[in-house]
Amino acid sequence: MSKFLHSKFNSLTPYDTSEELESMNGYVKLNTNESPFGPSDKAITYTREAAKTLNFYPDPECRKLADKLSDLLNVKPSEIVFGNGSDEILNFLFMAFCQNGAVFPNITYSFYKILAKFHGVDYVTMPLRDFRIIPDDFSNMNGRTIFIANPNAPTGLALTLDELKQIITSNPDSLVVIDEAYVDFGAESAKDFIHEFDNVIVVRTFSKSRSMAGARLGWAMTNEDLAKDLRNIKNTITPYNINALTQAAALATLENEEETQKNINLICRVREGTKNRLREMGFEVLDSSTNFLFVRHEETSGEKVFEALKRCRIMIRHFDSPPKISDYNRITIGTAEQMQVMLEVLRRVVKK
Amino acid sequence: MSKFLHSKFNSLTPYDTSEELESMNGYVKLNTNESPFGPSDKAITYTREAAKTLNFYPDPECRKLADKLSDLLNVKPSEIVFGNGSDEILNFLFMAFCQNGAVFPNITYSFYKILAKFHGVDYVTMPLRDFRIIPDDFSNMNGRTIFIANPNAPTGLALTLDELKQIITSNPDSLVVIDEAYVDFGAESAKDFIHEFDNVIVVRTFSKSRSMAGARLGWAMTNEDLAKDLRNIKNTITPYNINALTQAAALATLENEEETQKNINLICRVREGTKNRLREMGFEVLDSSTNFLFVRHEETSGEKVFEALKRCRIMIRHFDSPPKISDYNRITIGTAEQMQVMLEVLRRVVKK
Repeated sequence: MSKFLHSKFNSLTPYDTSEELESMNGYVKLNTNESPFGPSDKAITYTREAAKTLNFYPDPECRKLADKLSDLLNVKPSEIVFGNGSDEILNFLFMAFCQNGAVFPNITYSFYKILAKFHGVDYVTMPLRDFRIIPDDFSNMNGRTIFIANPNAPTGLALTLDELKQIITSNPDSLVVIDEAYVDFGAESAKDFIHEFDNVIVVRTFSKSRSMAGARLGWAMTNEDLAKDLRNIKNTITPYNINALTQAAALATLENEEETQKNINLICRVREGTKNRLREMGFEVLDSSTNFLFVRHEETSGEKVFEALKRCRIMIRHFDSPPKISDYNRITIGTAEQMQVMLEVLRRVVKK
Repeated sequence: MSKFLHSKFNSLTPYDTSEELESMNGYVKLNTNESPFGPSDKAITYTREAAKTLNFYPDPECRKLADKLSDLLNVKPSEIVFGNGSDEILNFLFMAFCQNGAVFPNITYSFYKILAKFHGVDYVTMPLRDFRIIPDDFSNMNGRTIFIANPNAPTGLALTLDELKQIITSNPDSLVVIDEAYVDFGAESAKDFIHEFDNVIVVRTFSKSRSMAGARLGWAMTNEDLAKDLRNIKNTITPYNINALTQAAALATLENEEETQKNINLICRVREGTKNRLREMGFEVLDSSTNFLFVRHEETSGEKVFEALKRCRIMIRHFDSPPKISDYNRITIGTAEQMQVMLEVLRRVVKK
């Protein structure tokens, strides 16, 4: 590090993007849970139109987007805050809403730990049991901010609303962050809890079900008090965080919810078919409420499966650590054709 | 504030975007130093093409952009780090490179003070003299990180490279940040100093001369050690900070530097003409190395000038504080036609 970097950052652990950079080099990408479907024609048209006036600053409040989301989700525009990806919302939350520490599952979205460390947040992790989040384990967290990915990644398993409610009500002094990146693929949204409880933030993204990972857009839904705090943080350090092109593409996408729903239905159908084929081949596959499958083979190591697919230019996600999941891989659901090709490769691999 | 916000943020002073929101409502926008010219056709084409694959994550390293900038500016790709607007780069700098405090002029880009306060940085401001930054005043800053907007805003005045070098060499223990948002309109870039000194970061933006305020893109140029630190910060909290649409639009813009230069030349010509007309009308107008003019009338108050233009749906920037500049306005150079209309309104105002 240079002599000018603040000493508190002398041991940064950046998010590792090297595999993502490699996968952009002509691989079938089944590694980052992107949608296999491009955005709608309308999104492309709106984006092109927005490009024509790119010389002007974007709307710092994303008013059209907030109005449209408000209509769709039955929350007020004042209860919505947008981020440059849901990652930015998560960054704000670890930066400014974890004074009493944080708690999250030991196996979950890896970014939570990275952000907690970066912001010097005192965090603890709660072990999953049989890969499940157990609500009882999260009761009375003493004011720690609770981060629950629902459905969780990389397991793909979801909690019910009743289970979430148990966590929320047993922690009146804790902020409960429910990260719903994958909720559209098979879980129920906790969004209405923001009106029922004062300690809930629901975080969502356009990167998965809405085919817009490249546009970087996420949002938080919470009560007006918390939304105001979040918006103040946003307006202090990054008032124009959402560019005009992304705002335009997202508006078009929200105006075309039928296409989003059609894509979701297709992905879920392909997921169930793929799951069954994998099980027939001796894979243990967790039931998934997401657009990915978390799998382990009875006889073939996780690393071997990963490497075999990689040699065939198919990139899935392998986890070296923690040891508990190092025999697993996370496979994004692509098109039916992509799954077909992948299954053929795997058939050869597991027979050896 | 909610009970969940960290107590260190209990007195946030967000950047005020209310006037910007109002100005988007059909005003001639001469208030935020945007370019009056839209992006090139090529930028629109590239953006539309990029929209088609928006389902995939963007390149976290902006490799094509870095390569192209490297060619144009004679710096290595490894010496470049991109931000979601240059504001994001500035945020990283105040967050992580100001352990010994910061210093900047008392009249300069208002965001410096906002960021310093947010990150709890011990900062001091150095008074301008006759609106000028005096290099001697910035010698021996005891390790404080020095922020110099060159040209400065809202004054429009620039330092020479020799003057900058004096600040840099008299502060070997300070990081010197040179914010060149407006440099293309009439000042010399300090970019080559990053190879000559180990304590220099140059910050640039696509928002002004490159007609892309709506796309949110800025970049830092510095030596590889510092660039690595900055990149580590970026990859820790926001690995995918630059969306794919912005990357595409920016690449097209860099492939079309002639159009950028043509626009710059035109803006500078209109600026000089506008300056002369304003002086004929009794305005005191500072010489400008930027795409705006900083003006005060001998007899008519700054507020009156601002309000008169606003009534005619022309928005310029008025500063309520500090008192020293409350009689001034900052006027962005628009098209020749826009300047014509503005001058006609002003002629009526100052005669009264």
